[in-house]
Amino acid sequence: MADPLRLGIAGLGTVGAGVVKIIRQKQALLEARTGREIVISAVSARSRAKDRGVNLSSYAWEDDPVALATRDDVDVFVELVGGEDGPAKDATEAAINAGKDVVTANKAMLAMHGQTLAEMAEAAGRVIRFEAAVAGGIPVIKALTEGLAGNEVTRVMGVMNGSCNYILTRMESAGLTYEEVFAEADGLGYLEADPQLDVGGIDAAHKLAILSSIAFGTQVDFAGIALEGIENVTIEDINHAADMGFKIKLLGSAQLGARGLEQSMAPCLVPATSPLGQLDGGTNMVVLEGDQVGQIVLRGAGAGEGPTASAVLSDIVDIARGTRLPTFGQPATQLQKAKSAKSATPAPYYLRMSLEDKPGALAKVATALGDAGVSIDRMRQYDHADAATAPVLIVTHTVSADALNAALQALPGTGVISDTPVALRIEKV
Amino acid sequence: MADPLRLGIAGLGTVGAGVVKIIRQKQALLEARTGREIVISAVSARSRAKDRGVNLSSYAWEDDPVALATRDDVDVFVELVGGEDGPAKDATEAAINAGKDVVTANKAMLAMHGQTLAEMAEAAGRVIRFEAAVAGGIPVIKALTEGLAGNEVTRVMGVMNGSCNYILTRMESAGLTYEEVFAEADGLGYLEADPQLDVGGIDAAHKLAILSSIAFGTQVDFAGIALEGIENVTIEDINHAADMGFKIKLLGSAQLGARGLEQSMAPCLVPATSPLGQLDGGTNMVVLEGDQVGQIVLRGAGAGEGPTASAVLSDIVDIARGTRLPTFGQPATQLQKAKSAKSATPAPYYLRMSLEDKPGALAKVATALGDAGVSIDRMRQYDHADAATAPVLIVTHTVSADALNAALQALPGTGVISDTPVALRIEKV
Repeated sequence: MADPLRLGIAGLGTVGAGVVKIIRQKQALLEARTGREIVISAVSARSRAKDRGVNLSSYAWEDDPVALATRDDVDVFVELVGGEDGPAKDATEAAINAGKDVVTANKAMLAMHGQTLAEMAEAAGRVIRFEAAVAGGIPVIKALTEGLAGNEVTRVMGVMNGSCNYILTRMESAGLTYEEVFAEADGLGYLEADPQLDVGGIDAAHKLAILSSIAFGTQVDFAGIALEGIENVTIEDINHAADMGFKIKLLGSAQLGARGLEQSMAPCLVPATSPLGQLDGGTNMVVLEGDQVGQIVLRGAGAGEGPTASAVLSDIVDIARGTRLPTFGQPATQLQKAKSAKSATPAPYYLRMSLEDKPGALAKVATALGDAGVSIDRMRQYDHADAATAPVLIVTHTVSADALNAALQALPGTGVISDTPVALRIEKV
Repeated sequence: MADPLRLGIAGLGTVGAGVVKIIRQKQALLEARTGREIVISAVSARSRAKDRGVNLSSYAWEDDPVALATRDDVDVFVELVGGEDGPAKDATEAAINAGKDVVTANKAMLAMHGQTLAEMAEAAGRVIRFEAAVAGGIPVIKALTEGLAGNEVTRVMGVMNGSCNYILTRMESAGLTYEEVFAEADGLGYLEADPQLDVGGIDAAHKLAILSSIAFGTQVDFAGIALEGIENVTIEDINHAADMGFKIKLLGSAQLGARGLEQSMAPCLVPATSPLGQLDGGTNMVVLEGDQVGQIVLRGAGAGEGPTASAVLSDIVDIARGTRLPTFGQPATQLQKAKSAKSATPAPYYLRMSLEDKPGALAKVATALGDAGVSIDRMRQYDHADAATAPVLIVTHTVSADALNAALQALPGTGVISDTPVALRIEKV
């Protein structure tokens, strides 16, 4: 039997404690699956006194994650501290420099510093693994890096922030406003300490940036993502979209084509009957498209102790089994700098605006759209009831982003629109 | 750069030719992803003359797959011949004995001889990889063996024969009988040369046996699968099930519990709105459940040149990258003999029978069911119209298989049933 694999685990929150529990409870199973004993040498967290529901007394304690990462009795540094900079990054770098492999769940660190860390690790002959960084328990990093390795990946999409999906589906099912559900989710502890990471789409965009790099052999480019959160999604748009057979999702999409690399994370409409449309609550879904394999859809829990710890364990097991690959599937020094596409791929859009009760108002809107090159697939005008304006919904045919923007700029000039029109992309997945 | 990885490919049907095409077209990409050149040294097939749409002139030709498998210039034997015995098995064994790794898409061979082959390969320090054997392009072997390695797997389910799923969904959408759609599918080339492999559920059961072994650390046990094909599924049952909110699927299910290992491949009802219920046409879906990760659902093309070749390539890339694990995720000598559960886990069932037009007929049926311990959740009796009998549909509450069988045996004794009742298990996934 090979030597034991010795871990140093930094960060003992929900996920860290979950990892410790699995390693303690499944010792025999993990040994059968890896041919090695997996042991914890030392742990580190902010508070030593806190009860984490698991016995830590047999492990050495380090207050400083850098000290933990560089211990002689640690082969693999398991980074579950979080945060794009600070102790997580310091300790990761220290671990690599000390000749350790790294397992991390830190999507922010990888999205911002993935290229540097990958180059550093590969120069040192070490691996960085991060299955838990994207879509929790779904083995999507593995599916993309290894399972689809015979493909040119053509597109990656997904709903990868469970909190946002919870908020959007709860708004629809309960008929509540964004503000009401946000307060509810916050009270239930569903949101990050900085909720902007969730509802601003940043957390999901971190994940998308990582997937893009693996999919297209490009350097992680978080800044290149067209990013929009869910804060401006209204219950009215959710209800109108539902009327027309759609759901609104915070959808990430990345594709590499002649136009360059196009990455977006934004609220989109998807058909209500599609797999993405039926994804309720905190579940995640990732769609991978390859030139050989076609479309692969993966669905599962995107967060939580068990699912995230499961992903961390799969990385640990891989290292124990001797699996070693470059961080992003190709040597970091060979990854191309991403050239961001200047504009989005043509798509149909959902438009909503408030039309004033004037003769010929609708004709003016239709003319403005037509003049900009935007053709209408479906339109609905609702009752004016008592109000002076009526909501008008339009589903366009596939149009270029340029044409759409021209139309949006022309609409106020019609003099019959009383608000800023809402425009949401429709993805037909 | 490491030495090239040299392949010998036996079997140049759709999948074999697809593998050759990818290796020719994606040389640079595969080299970037593996750090090695992947080259084909030699190929083998039944007919050398046949045009396969790909240039084979630069590869050595062997008429005999055994000769191919043992060539000095072959590192990995790629077995795409098929068939549980004969040349595929002979050549696989020869390859292992000659110190080659093996990549195969052969579910039949693994389901029948997987344990022997795994023991042989592991004793020789070689690997057998078979991502393409189960669910085509979906990386489910990888997800289960590696992605869920930190879990005790609690259940594996799936729709894993696209031809059967095509037939069942086409029957429903076109209102055609089984015989009509079977003839249509056969004409379109959707069925195996021996269609019983498809419609008898054998092909899907081979796949389930492989997944069970990995999931539960048990020796492959094809004989232990309760197997029933789709030949007796009628359009009436499909329509009645739809009326009650269900779809009929050829569903595989395996779980290991106190009762033993329970494996079944049989037509079942699933909720029409569930992911499995919405799986139309030739697509496959596998559901993996683990104690940590919860439920993971994987969906994609289960057959075809591109998807299957994609899976074969992922195995080749893994070997090129140096990834090496035991065939079924644990050393074959440690796999337990499966103890088959004596009876199925309790479940709700769908029952259909033809009731004669006699006073008190329905009461007699209800009494017979109640006496056997089967309680009724929902029941529908249809018009007698002109006929002397009327269809009656019953959805039971969760009942034991013993109670269900007792009820099925008691029903003829009521004297009011004019046919043999149909009973289909309902899976609430």
